[in-house]
Amino acid sequence: MVPRVRVIENGSITTTPGFEAAGIAAGIKADGALDLAMVRSVAPCTGAAVFTTNRFQAAPVIYDRETLHRNPTGLRGVVINSGCANACTGDQGMRDTRATAAAAAQYAGGSSDDYMVMSTGVIGQLLPMDTVLAGVETATRGLASAVDAGHRAARAIMTTDTVPKEMAVLVEIDSVRFTVAGMAKGAGMISPNMATLLVVFTTDADIAPELAQQALMTAVDASLNMITIDGDMSTNDTAMLLANGEAEMAQIDAADSVAYAAFVDGLTRVAVGLAQGLVRDGEGATRFIEICVTGAANRSEARRIGMSVANSALVKTAIYGQDANWGRIVCAVGYAGVPLDPDAVRVWLGDLELVRDGGPYQIDEERAAEILAQTDIPIRIDLGRGDVEATVWTSDLSHAYVDINAHYRT
Amino acid sequence: MVPRVRVIENGSITTTPGFEAAGIAAGIKADGALDLAMVRSVAPCTGAAVFTTNRFQAAPVIYDRETLHRNPTGLRGVVINSGCANACTGDQGMRDTRATAAAAAQYAGGSSDDYMVMSTGVIGQLLPMDTVLAGVETATRGLASAVDAGHRAARAIMTTDTVPKEMAVLVEIDSVRFTVAGMAKGAGMISPNMATLLVVFTTDADIAPELAQQALMTAVDASLNMITIDGDMSTNDTAMLLANGEAEMAQIDAADSVAYAAFVDGLTRVAVGLAQGLVRDGEGATRFIEICVTGAANRSEARRIGMSVANSALVKTAIYGQDANWGRIVCAVGYAGVPLDPDAVRVWLGDLELVRDGGPYQIDEERAAEILAQTDIPIRIDLGRGDVEATVWTSDLSHAYVDINAHYRT
Repeated sequence: MVPRVRVIENGSITTTPGFEAAGIAAGIKADGALDLAMVRSVAPCTGAAVFTTNRFQAAPVIYDRETLHRNPTGLRGVVINSGCANACTGDQGMRDTRATAAAAAQYAGGSSDDYMVMSTGVIGQLLPMDTVLAGVETATRGLASAVDAGHRAARAIMTTDTVPKEMAVLVEIDSVRFTVAGMAKGAGMISPNMATLLVVFTTDADIAPELAQQALMTAVDASLNMITIDGDMSTNDTAMLLANGEAEMAQIDAADSVAYAAFVDGLTRVAVGLAQGLVRDGEGATRFIEICVTGAANRSEARRIGMSVANSALVKTAIYGQDANWGRIVCAVGYAGVPLDPDAVRVWLGDLELVRDGGPYQIDEERAAEILAQTDIPIRIDLGRGDVEATVWTSDLSHAYVDINAHYRT
Repeated sequence: MVPRVRVIENGSITTTPGFEAAGIAAGIKADGALDLAMVRSVAPCTGAAVFTTNRFQAAPVIYDRETLHRNPTGLRGVVINSGCANACTGDQGMRDTRATAAAAAQYAGGSSDDYMVMSTGVIGQLLPMDTVLAGVETATRGLASAVDAGHRAARAIMTTDTVPKEMAVLVEIDSVRFTVAGMAKGAGMISPNMATLLVVFTTDADIAPELAQQALMTAVDASLNMITIDGDMSTNDTAMLLANGEAEMAQIDAADSVAYAAFVDGLTRVAVGLAQGLVRDGEGATRFIEICVTGAANRSEARRIGMSVANSALVKTAIYGQDANWGRIVCAVGYAGVPLDPDAVRVWLGDLELVRDGGPYQIDEERAAEILAQTDIPIRIDLGRGDVEATVWTSDLSHAYVDINAHYRT
């Protein structure tokens, strides 16, 4: 039987059976906004995670990697704060992360090795630990399995985000049904590589630890690793999966099983949804740009071309200005480092084939203006080198991006 | 004797003996601004050039590479237009470039193989050839050796530049004296790699062709290859050297000679001056940022770290906003792909050592604000891995950059 993946309307991280969440205003952010979230499972979880490849890794990234290694199948939850990244904070930063996990264990049960920690916000400042520890106690008291509790958690992890990013799907395969849900934050410093922003996935599927990790990497590679907002890779990027095995099913223990494929489908669906949500809410974004690269010799070069165009300040400002300046797209294709034949490259903006045989083809400024007036901008680039494709998503570069980032700390 | 390199005040491309130039308004630009320049030598020149590594190469780039190969020591000059890049213009673009060189030969003497061509402006549009050919005739009539003729040529190659970039030096070594002069344009799509924007160097030094090429590559590597404005590499980048040998001197024919070293010194001095001028006049630039990377294991990694910081949209917007958000500098160091030890990295903003031992060190917001209020922003990053250093120059990312590039074609 073919697995069926259905989006659950109004889903949140707690849509998955057996998970509770809370989101509170602990007082880390000066403006009194929600700034501390907890997610807890009623049963021990198998965990999986991917982290930033930045050489400067925030204390919680280092801590989570060690914790996952020590306790891959007994995890109970995660504490997440916004407003302070706890990155470049030396030994004190590590002590603060450990104290946060210990507080979670003290108030919510279990040992400190059962809890992971995530932080996001300004780099280089220490966490206000009295506030954080009191917040963990308050959040624990507020843990609830209601969908709204998940919504509050998703809002509590936001920084420059303007909307929460949440999604849940129901996967059905034969008589088995399980849920995959996720929440994410991130609007700037977004250019993940083998890792991503703060993302938490929950599932009640029962899955072996090594397959959980493999499924997470596969899903992230097709989603969070295919987006860029500003080309800057954060010190704190973390995507985490907690699988509590509460669904009535046999454990997924073979990579070639239909159930594993169904799980990867569901997880990827949520991951792509969240990744696209991150881009739509990119700092200052007025456009959602989908760059589909076809005719590549391999996936790596397809991604490289897509990312080169997606990270071009000139392409991004042209789209912001609704200017069909296709020469900038071609230019960014040309400097991506792929040994392509310029005359074989074709470029489409929506249904307009702008470039063929190394020069302009269907130039129709009126139709181009119509396409660029839409919120979603589809660009396709065919390299004429093979039959592999990859899709990258990005946002435009606007005055508001400069506004937001010129005075982020103040 | 140690060579002496002196800057010549108010220098232009025609400060070099034996060179004439002209800059006219041919009518390529709609606003009637200067848009066509010519540089001609009274005697045949040895030529050298470096070009963009973009896979999409403009017609004049392809043409110049072939011309230099056919005629390395008999060059007479170059025709340069602004307002249209003649890139992605297919066979017609190649014919137009050849016709431009042929017109130069017809009006200014010699054969079409004696003239190189450069174009800069919008990608993907054909040159208005009637206008260009009439312009070449007019420019030829206006050729003059006066310094002002060089100034007009430097203005005629500008696009979004707000000031011309020109420099000349006098090199003295024993009884030999020769001049090196240059002009450059470029304010956006600036991230050269083994090539650069439009730059013309003239010299009356007598130098063997292979040494002229070697000297040009050395000078460009220390100057134009160390700057970035927006991380976009143009399809038209060209730096060209014309050496007419008019100075009274023996030919420079050995790479280990004092005269060759003196020539490289002089050429590098002009190249660095022009490169810094390009950055100061970067699109929308309000700050000139010098990023000195020290303690590297090799020059390649030093440049890579410097470029990673220089291309970070978050670092550039923070400096525009006069915000000492050093976490963004550290973050960009961390994702540059150099396997460094985060705890060994130190970061200075002017005289403030912001980062040591993986965390904040001399945090003084008042002093930082003073430094960021200046036009020139000195950043130093020590990697603690070796004793090699490299310096990269860039500009900030401002609202004006977005203004300029959102509506470049309109």
